[in-house]
Amino acid sequence: MNTFGQKFRLTTFGESHGPAIGGVIDGFPAGIAIDFDAIAAAMEERRPGRRGVSPRKEDDMPQFLSGISPEGISLGTPIGFVIWNKDTRSVDYGNLAHSFRPNHADYTYFAKYGIRDHRGGGRASARETACRVVGGAFAAQLLKERGIEIKAFLTAAGKVGEEDILRRLAESPELASTYQPSPTVREKMEREIEDAQTSGDSVGGAVTCIITGLGAGIGEPIYDKLTARLASAMMGINAAKAFESGLGRESASMRGSRMLDNFENRDGRIVTSTNFSGGIQGGISNGMPIFFNVYFKPTPTIGLPVALMGENGEVAVETIKGRHDPCVAVRAVPVVKAMAAMTLADLIL
Amino acid sequence: MNTFGQKFRLTTFGESHGPAIGGVIDGFPAGIAIDFDAIAAAMEERRPGRRGVSPRKEDDMPQFLSGISPEGISLGTPIGFVIWNKDTRSVDYGNLAHSFRPNHADYTYFAKYGIRDHRGGGRASARETACRVVGGAFAAQLLKERGIEIKAFLTAAGKVGEEDILRRLAESPELASTYQPSPTVREKMEREIEDAQTSGDSVGGAVTCIITGLGAGIGEPIYDKLTARLASAMMGINAAKAFESGLGRESASMRGSRMLDNFENRDGRIVTSTNFSGGIQGGISNGMPIFFNVYFKPTPTIGLPVALMGENGEVAVETIKGRHDPCVAVRAVPVVKAMAAMTLADLIL
Amino acid sequence: MNTFGQKFRLTTFGESHGPAIGGVIDGFPAGIAIDFDAIAAAMEERRPGRRGVSPRKEDDMPQFLSGISPEGISLGTPIGFVIWNKDTRSVDYGNLAHSFRPNHADYTYFAKYGIRDHRGGGRASARETACRVVGGAFAAQLLKERGIEIKAFLTAAGKVGEEDILRRLAESPELASTYQPSPTVREKMEREIEDAQTSGDSVGGAVTCIITGLGAGIGEPIYDKLTARLASAMMGINAAKAFESGLGRESASMRGSRMLDNFENRDGRIVTSTNFSGGIQGGISNGMPIFFNVYFKPTPTIGLPVALMGENGEVAVETIKGRHDPCVAVRAVPVVKAMAAMTLADLIL
Amino acid sequence: MNTFGQKFRLTTFGESHGPAIGGVIDGFPAGIAIDFDAIAAAMEERRPGRRGVSPRKEDDMPQFLSGISPEGISLGTPIGFVIWNKDTRSVDYGNLAHSFRPNHADYTYFAKYGIRDHRGGGRASARETACRVVGGAFAAQLLKERGIEIKAFLTAAGKVGEEDILRRLAESPELASTYQPSPTVREKMEREIEDAQTSGDSVGGAVTCIITGLGAGIGEPIYDKLTARLASAMMGINAAKAFESGLGRESASMRGSRMLDNFENRDGRIVTSTNFSGGIQGGISNGMPIFFNVYFKPTPTIGLPVALMGENGEVAVETIKGRHDPCVAVRAVPVVKAMAAMTLADLIL
Repeated sequence: MNTFGQKFRLTTFGESHGPAIGGVIDGFPAGIAIDFDAIAAAMEERRPGRRGVSPRKEDDMPQFLSGISPEGISLGTPIGFVIWNKDTRSVDYGNLAHSFRPNHADYTYFAKYGIRDHRGGGRASARETACRVVGGAFAAQLLKERGIEIKAFLTAAGKVGEEDILRRLAESPELASTYQPSPTVREKMEREIEDAQTSGDSVGGAVTCIITGLGAGIGEPIYDKLTARLASAMMGINAAKAFESGLGRESASMRGSRMLDNFENRDGRIVTSTNFSGGIQGGISNGMPIFFNVYFKPTPTIGLPVALMGENGEVAVETIKGRHDPCVAVRAVPVVKAMAAMTLADLIL
Repeated sequence: MNTFGQKFRLTTFGESHGPAIGGVIDGFPAGIAIDFDAIAAAMEERRPGRRGVSPRKEDDMPQFLSGISPEGISLGTPIGFVIWNKDTRSVDYGNLAHSFRPNHADYTYFAKYGIRDHRGGGRASARETACRVVGGAFAAQLLKERGIEIKAFLTAAGKVGEEDILRRLAESPELASTYQPSPTVREKMEREIEDAQTSGDSVGGAVTCIITGLGAGIGEPIYDKLTARLASAMMGINAAKAFESGLGRESASMRGSRMLDNFENRDGRIVTSTNFSGGIQGGISNGMPIFFNVYFKPTPTIGLPVALMGENGEVAVETIKGRHDPCVAVRAVPVVKAMAAMTLADLIL
Repeated sequence: MNTFGQKFRLTTFGESHGPAIGGVIDGFPAGIAIDFDAIAAAMEERRPGRRGVSPRKEDDMPQFLSGISPEGISLGTPIGFVIWNKDTRSVDYGNLAHSFRPNHADYTYFAKYGIRDHRGGGRASARETACRVVGGAFAAQLLKERGIEIKAFLTAAGKVGEEDILRRLAESPELASTYQPSPTVREKMEREIEDAQTSGDSVGGAVTCIITGLGAGIGEPIYDKLTARLASAMMGINAAKAFESGLGRESASMRGSRMLDNFENRDGRIVTSTNFSGGIQGGISNGMPIFFNVYFKPTPTIGLPVALMGENGEVAVETIKGRHDPCVAVRAVPVVKAMAAMTLADLIL
Repeated sequence: MNTFGQKFRLTTFGESHGPAIGGVIDGFPAGIAIDFDAIAAAMEERRPGRRGVSPRKEDDMPQFLSGISPEGISLGTPIGFVIWNKDTRSVDYGNLAHSFRPNHADYTYFAKYGIRDHRGGGRASARETACRVVGGAFAAQLLKERGIEIKAFLTAAGKVGEEDILRRLAESPELASTYQPSPTVREKMEREIEDAQTSGDSVGGAVTCIITGLGAGIGEPIYDKLTARLASAMMGINAAKAFESGLGRESASMRGSRMLDNFENRDGRIVTSTNFSGGIQGGISNGMPIFFNVYFKPTPTIGLPVALMGENGEVAVETIKGRHDPCVAVRAVPVVKAMAAMTLADLIL
C-alpha cells in the first residue's frame, strides 16, 4: 500500500505526469512551529534540474492544505500537501504507451494492474520520492529536537568511491560524527557520472547513512528489528539493490573473535570501543552511531538504443527520448535521509 | 512487536529457557490437509544437535493446540502451537545474570526493558527461530500448491564459498532451477567451520535463496516493494547483517547499458534473457526467478575469553561456557526459507 | 489515526476553514471506469445549503489528482483528491478562539493537542465527512458490480419517526428490498426539524441502513466481527451515540425461543424465515439482508444562549452565531451509506 | 483476524473442544510484578459452573509459558498462555456434526470456511472469551496503576432490570463512582433467568459499564473515536446486539438545548455539570466518567425442540442436549470489563 509507518505515517499519491503528487502526514505532534526552511532545503537537495541529475525543472515545493495553523504551528491533525506537476512533457513518452522498457517497472505494473500511466513512469517515477522528502523533513525536525542527526553521503558512483567506508566507521566509532567524503573522491565520482552521461549511459552508486544521537533501547527485538525496519525503508527506494548494516557483508567472512565490540565504561557512559555492529544489537540500538550502506543500480533509462517489448510481444530496438538522471544515487541521498528519519520518528513517537 | 505478516500472520512467544516457546498462525486457509511430514523435515533441518551446529538436544517438534481438525484438516481458525523447552541447562548461564556479553543483545534488551531473562539469551536466543520454521512450513505448503518453490543454500562460510553466485544467477536465469552448491565448496565450508570451532572461535556465512514459480505482478510498488518485504524479513533473522537482491551490491559499480534484462517472447511467455534484476522490477515480480543473498555475522558466543560488562559498569574478562553454533548461517538456511515463504504467502493470499 | 480500512483504505485530512480538505483512496482496483455521476450524486446528498441542513454553500465536488487515467479509468494506484474550502466565513467564529462550547469537541481537542483550529470546528467539523462520502462512492461502485446495495433512510427525528422499524425488518425479511419511509412519517420528521430550527434549537435523529445482496461468509469471527466493524464505522461518524444490529436492544428483553431465525431451504438456497439476527451470526454474514440503526444526538450548536468555558476557566453565557444543521442525522444518511460501503469493500477485496 | 489491539495486543487461538485455548499478550511493559490474584479473580467471575451459568466445569486458569520472569516480573516480551480444555463432553454434540442450529454461527462458519469444528461451537464458543479475560486482567493492572477503574454490572435480564440507567448516570455524574445495582433488581433478574432456565429457554440481558479516572484527551478524533473503539470491542463479544454510549439511543429523540453538558470550573478542574455525552466528545475523553450499555441476545441454545438444517438442506426438529448458559449476559460482565480494559490500555500505552 501507499502508507509508510505506523505512528508517524506518510501516505502518498500521484503519478509523474498527472495533475499533482502529494501526501498526508499523520501522527506529527501538535504545537510545533514547522521549520519551513528545513523543508525547502531538503526539497532543494532532491530537486531535478541541478548538475548531475535530470534536467526536468520543477520547483517542487509542497503546498500545505491542512494540519498547520495560520501561524505555522502544527495542530496534531493530518498534514495534507500537494506538489503540482508543472513541467511535464508527456509528448516525450508518446512512443512508450504500449511498450515495456527493460529494467523499468513498465512490465511489472502492467502485469499487476493491467493498465498503467506510461507517461514519465507514472507512479513508478522517482518523482514520487519528492513526497518522501517532505515527510522526512517533518520527521527530521522531531529527531533534531531530541538530538538525533541523520547524515547521508554519496560514497560510490560506478567503479569509484570511498574505500572500506563501513570498516572505517566500524573500527573508529568517532568517525561517525566528523565524516565527510574527501574532495578527491567526490571529484572522481562526478567525473564518473559525467562520463556515463556523455556516453549516453548511466551508472550505479552507493549512499552511506550515519545516524548519531540515538540512545540505547530503540527498536523491536524480533521481526521488527531496527535493522529490518531500516532495510525495508531503504529497499523501498527506487533502484535500491542492496543494504548493509554495520560491517555488513564483510561480517560473513570474519571470525567472531575479530569483530567483538568490547564494552567500555567512559565516565559512566557505556560505549563500545569498536562498532562492527553498526549501533544495533539484537535489533535494538545500543547508543553507538548507526551506519549503513544502500546500493543503487544505474537507472535503466539511457540514451542508447534499447530493446522494447510491445504489449503484444513484439520486440523493437529504439532510442528513448526523455530527461533522466545519469546516476539516481545522487538524488537518492536526501531520500535515504528522509526514509531513515521517518523510520526513527515512527519508532520514537 | 512479535507478529510477522498481515494476512498470513505468525505471532510468537517464548524465552530460550522458559517453559516453552510457541506461536499462533493466523490466516491459513481452511480445508487443507496439513503436511506434517514437511513440518517435521523443516524442523529437522533447523534442529540443534546436528553436525556443525549447537549440541543442545531438543526434538523441537511443535504440539498443535487448535486450528486443525482431528482428521488433520485446517479449520481456517488460528493454529496455536507450543514447543516445550526440555534440555535447558540454565546453570551454564549463571555467571551471566548481571553481565553483558559483547555483540549480544544482552545490553540492548536491558537498555530497552530494564530487565531480561539472561538464561540462554532469553527471547533473543536463536531458539525463537524454531517458531518461524513452523510458520514457514505452513506457508511453504500454500506456495507449493501454487507451484512456487523456495530453496536456500549455505554459499559462504568465512572466507570460502561460491564465487560470484549472484552474477551467475543473473547471467544465466535457467541456473535458478538447477543450482546446487558444488561438493568441493561444501567441503571447504565445512572445514572452515570446523577450524573455527576447533580454535574456540566462530565464523560468519552467507545464504543464497532462490524462488521459482512466482508469476509476474506480485508485490506492492512503493513503500512495500517485494524487495523491501524480503529485506525486512531477512534482516529480522538473528545475526543478519546484509541483504542483496539480484546483482545486489555489484549493481552500484555498473553502467546501465551493461545490465539491461532484455525481454524475450518465448512462445508467448515474456521472459528476460538475463536476470540482473533478480526477478523484481519496481518492487513487483516479473515472473523470472527471484534470488537474493543474506549475510550473517559470526555468532559472538565463542569459547575464547571475552570482556564482559557488568550492570554496574565493571569490565571482567571471562570465558563463557555454553553450547553454541560455530556458524549460525548453517542453521539460518531453513529460517531464510521460512521467512521467504511467509513473506510470499502473505502477499499471495 | 486518520485512515479507515485495511485493503480499501481512505486517509483524509483537512480543517473546516483551512485551504482544503481531501484524502487518498488506496486499494481501489485497476481498470474500472469511474462512475463520476454516482460520486456527484452522493456529494449532492450530503451537501450543505439544502433544506433542513446548514446553509453553508459549497459545491463540494472533489478535484481528483491521481490514480485515474485521462480516460477516467482507475490505475490501481492511490486516488488523491482535494475539496477546496470556499465559503468559509471565519469571522463568524472569532469569539470562539479561546472558548469551549458545551458538547462540542473544542475542549477535548484542546485537552489532547493543546492547540486547535477553532474556526468552524476545525478538524472536528462535519465537513470532514465530505471526504468519507467520496471514499464511499468509490466503494459503493465496487459493491454494485457484485450486486450489493446499500440503502439508508432517516427513520426518526426527535420524537417522531418509524415505529418498530427493526422489528418489522426482522419479522419480514423481504421488507429489506422494498422499504421506503412513509410520506406521512417523512413529513412529520420534516416538521419536527423545522420546529427545532424555528425555536433556535436542534434535534437528534436515527438512520436505518439496509444492505442487500451480500452473500454468506463475509466477516471475521472473533474480534473483528462484521457487527463490530459496522459498529466501529458508524460510531466514528460525528454525533453518533448508539448502534443496534438486527433486533438490537430489544433482543436483551427477549426469550431465546422467540427469536430463532429458522432455516428454510428455498429451492436450494438456504434462507431464514425471520431475520432477528439482522443477517449476521457469529460475526459473519448469513446471506440474509443486513440492517442496523444508528442514533445521532442533536447538534450542540444552537441559536440559543449557551455557557462557554474560556481557556482560563471563566464561564460566559453567549449566543453563538454560525450556520449549522438543525438535525445532523439528515446529512448523516449519505455518510452512513459511505461508511457501510467502505466497511464492506474492505472486507470483500 | 484473531488479534485485538495495536500496542497492547491480544492474539488468541483455540476451539472449545480441542486440546487447549490460549493466547499471546504483546506490548505489556517490562518490570511489573504480575498480579496473579487479580487474574484468578477475573477468571473466577467468568468461570462456568457457577449459579446461573453453564454447568461445564473447568478451573480455567491459564498456564503462563513466557514473558514473565521466575520471580513473577514481566519481561516486556510476549506473554504466552494456554488454558487446557478438560471437561469436554464431545459426545453431547454428536448429532450436530452435519447440522446447523438456528442463530448459531454453525452455518456462517460453514459458509466461510467450508469446514468447522462442530464440537461445542468450536471457535465460536463463548469459551474463547476466557482468553479475553486473561488479556483484560493484564490490561486492568496497567490501568489501575494510573488510577483508572472499570466496573460492569448486569443491569437487565429479559424484561426486568434497572430503569433509565443511562439517564441516571447522565444526569448525576457522581453516580458513576458509587453505583451498585439494587438488591431488589438483582433478585428480580435472577428470578427471570431461573424462569427461563426452568422452562428450557434462555433470556437476553444488558450490561452497563462505567469507567472512572480516565483523564481528558484520550481517543482519536476521526475514524478511531473512543466511542468507535469501545463499540467495536463490545460488538465483538459473542451475542452482543447493541451499544449505547452516554445517553445513547435516547439522544436521538432529544432537543439539543436539553442535553448540553455545561462546563464548570471546580477549583481549577474543568468538569461538566451533567454527563449526557458519557465522558466522550468528538471521540476524545473529556475527563468525566465514561459509561455505556451493551445488549446481549438470549443464547440460541435452548432445551426446547428447534429446527436444524442439515448440510444437504433437509430440516429436522430436534432437542439439542448440551450444557449452556440461560443468560449469556451474566458471563459477559467480566468480558465487557476485559474488552474495555484492553481498549483503554491500547490507547494509553
